[in-house]
Amino acid sequence: MVLDSFIKDLGNIPHSRDAAALRVKSADFSWFSPIMSAALAGRLADVVVAPRSEEEVIRIASACARHRVPLVARGAGTGNFGQAVPLAGGAVVEMLGLERIVWRKPGSVRAQAGIRLGVLDEELKKYGRELRMHPSTKRLATLGGFVGGGHAGVGTVNWGILRDRGNLLGLRVVTIEETPRMLELRGDDVNHVHHAYGVNGLVTEVELPLAPAYEWLDTIVVFDDFERAAAFGLALATHDGLLKKLVSVHAWPIPGYFKPLQPYLPPGKAAALLMIGAETREASEALVRDFGGEITQCVPQAGLYEFTWGHTTMHALRADRSLTYLVCIFPREDPLGAIRRVHAKLGAEAYLHLEYKRFNGYVTAEGVPVFRYQGFEQMTRLYKAFEAEGVRIANAHTFLLQNGGMKDLDEAQIAFKRAVDPHLLMNPGKIAGLDDLPGGVSGAALEAAQLPASGWAY
Amino acid sequence: MVLDSFIKDLGNIPHSRDAAALRVKSADFSWFSPIMSAALAGRLADVVVAPRSEEEVIRIASACARHRVPLVARGAGTGNFGQAVPLAGGAVVEMLGLERIVWRKPGSVRAQAGIRLGVLDEELKKYGRELRMHPSTKRLATLGGFVGGGHAGVGTVNWGILRDRGNLLGLRVVTIEETPRMLELRGDDVNHVHHAYGVNGLVTEVELPLAPAYEWLDTIVVFDDFERAAAFGLALATHDGLLKKLVSVHAWPIPGYFKPLQPYLPPGKAAALLMIGAETREASEALVRDFGGEITQCVPQAGLYEFTWGHTTMHALRADRSLTYLVCIFPREDPLGAIRRVHAKLGAEAYLHLEYKRFNGYVTAEGVPVFRYQGFEQMTRLYKAFEAEGVRIANAHTFLLQNGGMKDLDEAQIAFKRAVDPHLLMNPGKIAGLDDLPGGVSGAALEAAQLPASGWAY
Repeated sequence: MVLDSFIKDLGNIPHSRDAAALRVKSADFSWFSPIMSAALAGRLADVVVAPRSEEEVIRIASACARHRVPLVARGAGTGNFGQAVPLAGGAVVEMLGLERIVWRKPGSVRAQAGIRLGVLDEELKKYGRELRMHPSTKRLATLGGFVGGGHAGVGTVNWGILRDRGNLLGLRVVTIEETPRMLELRGDDVNHVHHAYGVNGLVTEVELPLAPAYEWLDTIVVFDDFERAAAFGLALATHDGLLKKLVSVHAWPIPGYFKPLQPYLPPGKAAALLMIGAETREASEALVRDFGGEITQCVPQAGLYEFTWGHTTMHALRADRSLTYLVCIFPREDPLGAIRRVHAKLGAEAYLHLEYKRFNGYVTAEGVPVFRYQGFEQMTRLYKAFEAEGVRIANAHTFLLQNGGMKDLDEAQIAFKRAVDPHLLMNPGKIAGLDDLPGGVSGAALEAAQLPASGWAY
Repeated sequence: MVLDSFIKDLGNIPHSRDAAALRVKSADFSWFSPIMSAALAGRLADVVVAPRSEEEVIRIASACARHRVPLVARGAGTGNFGQAVPLAGGAVVEMLGLERIVWRKPGSVRAQAGIRLGVLDEELKKYGRELRMHPSTKRLATLGGFVGGGHAGVGTVNWGILRDRGNLLGLRVVTIEETPRMLELRGDDVNHVHHAYGVNGLVTEVELPLAPAYEWLDTIVVFDDFERAAAFGLALATHDGLLKKLVSVHAWPIPGYFKPLQPYLPPGKAAALLMIGAETREASEALVRDFGGEITQCVPQAGLYEFTWGHTTMHALRADRSLTYLVCIFPREDPLGAIRRVHAKLGAEAYLHLEYKRFNGYVTAEGVPVFRYQGFEQMTRLYKAFEAEGVRIANAHTFLLQNGGMKDLDEAQIAFKRAVDPHLLMNPGKIAGLDDLPGGVSGAALEAAQLPASGWAY
């Protein structure tokens, strides 16, 4: 059997064919989406491989190429879009063993792809630095996973998204060839690999610029009505003199899903979950007063970010499994107008969760509303209703790379894919039209792919 | 005589009535403006006093109040708007003796008003921090002078202007009363004193938030045409992932006035003078390529900022004393469109110099064009021509606080003025209608005050 020969070639590289391990390591957080859950049901790897060094990664890449074994790179499996779910069996390559910091300078760091972002961030803080941005899954998520499957997070309100120039300095990737090559990507070329779901080479090292580590205060501000909370959020995000790292705004009943925070979240009120800098706390308080907010908590960092970004959806779904979500971006011009209209027209059905972010050089809000899922027709209707108000939709219910709305799979991207993965073995089935699996895209996956996503002009 | 009694009361506080000292200490950089030069000709203090401590400042304040002696606070005299020129004689209070750092925390610093910004910045850099912003006169200018008479500078492209919330944390002022009070202003109240030309109390201490000290590279990029240079400048200023501290763009022939930089400034070309962060240098170079620029210099900090902001005007005037300048702000919406129109219609007469800045939460360009001065009618015509293209004018040729266009002298400001200076002794003649001098505003000063300034919505 091909697989047996492949496994024999792995030699002493740790691997497992244990059924429980295969189940766990073939899953990610795509259960956020009932559509994706259906589309990905039963998709399992045949073997989990856990390299401990770049040399072992190269051996795995070579073995996959020689034996034509499909492979999916995996960090912590915290992605929501099926990035780490193998559609065609084969090997899941779990990168957690590559956890070394390669070097650190005052303004940048280079580390192996499998390092946990939380571990890296703690190490950097010893030197007065921190990551520019991280997902709400920082404690679990890996550097390579974030760069391969993520796009933004806590800190994006200052620095823009990972894709914005300057936020990702370099990447080292291993090609999937009989004799693998090591490529160093720098400058704009990093975007061949960033947010490409691991279809373009095995990332072994990542180089990032750093931010100064300010003294952040986890701050909760509540408002009688959501519109004022949203307006406050935009004002805080755009005030250049005020230090902030997180501006996350939630319409009721979302704050009710945050069980551990209930003492600070009065029923019925909208809430802003913030990280603000201690140095400009007084000036931020003046802004809170301007918008009629009430500060219910303001303490040194205590993990408040784990109720924002993707974690908001997770807390909501844990409280009520009938909920699901969508992802959208409010327009550059008059985002508050669009937020107001969407909230007025759809707020009773779709509870608004906003993350203020910089993106392409300006501030706007990403919306991640949650709603009680009633089926594909409802999802289509909601997508269209948001779009009718000038809001762009990133389709969060498809595992197809080009249908998510973030990634423009242009000719250069496809040419790069073919160069680094000539046998089309990496995460197959994620690029429609290029590496379709037998039977193509069908069922729930086809439905999801047909949702009318307007993309993010990205 | 009143003055003799006043001087007797000064006791051992250093002071001088030497004619040369009075001439030097009664002047500032208002010679940039031929109109202001005429209006301020012959204005001299009667005595220069140089306190060495806050206690001595209090004794001076009390003596001024008791003897009704007018006073003008003075830092290094690097202001351009006659801020430090005494219109009614009396005392110039030179604050350079108050040069102590009161305390320093990782994210903020408090220092006495007379400290030179350059000295303070060098001290902060020992701890990996620096001033958020400073004028191009950093080496000479004082902290109190910057806060009292300045508004922005190098670093404003990141942090906004001094007036934006969070950029000025606290101020300590001594009132001009028989028994002076010490006031600590915090939050929005700091703006009673900021950019008020020293009419609202003697500032003894200033508290500022700090920025991280990045490894800045002094970088010159040249372009075949000015419009591309301007577009590049806006793109760099708005790219959140790229580190920058200075984005200064100059139409030819301005670069020709920068004598020491001639090797890097080919004749006829527009130039961008930048400070960019070493960590994101490669990404910035990609942006330069996008706009067809050519990098002619990129070296560790070597004082390039001393050719930008106010220094640009100074170098131009040193090269050609027939030049003068105006100050304007391009609109938030489509600044490049306005820049293009102004350059096309007026560029042969008014050579454009742009400083990209954040301001009220967005990025735009301040324009500081220089032109050959032909008289008041020309100035009026140019003001109106800029305004016709949607560009706001800050009147740089008046010493009147409310005519400059930066400061809205509302009731609260006037009430504060009366509370801290009940005898209206501080920098008299700078607030028309409140403390007019005998004869009122006349001659060149009246002409200047009547220039049609549209202000900065500030």
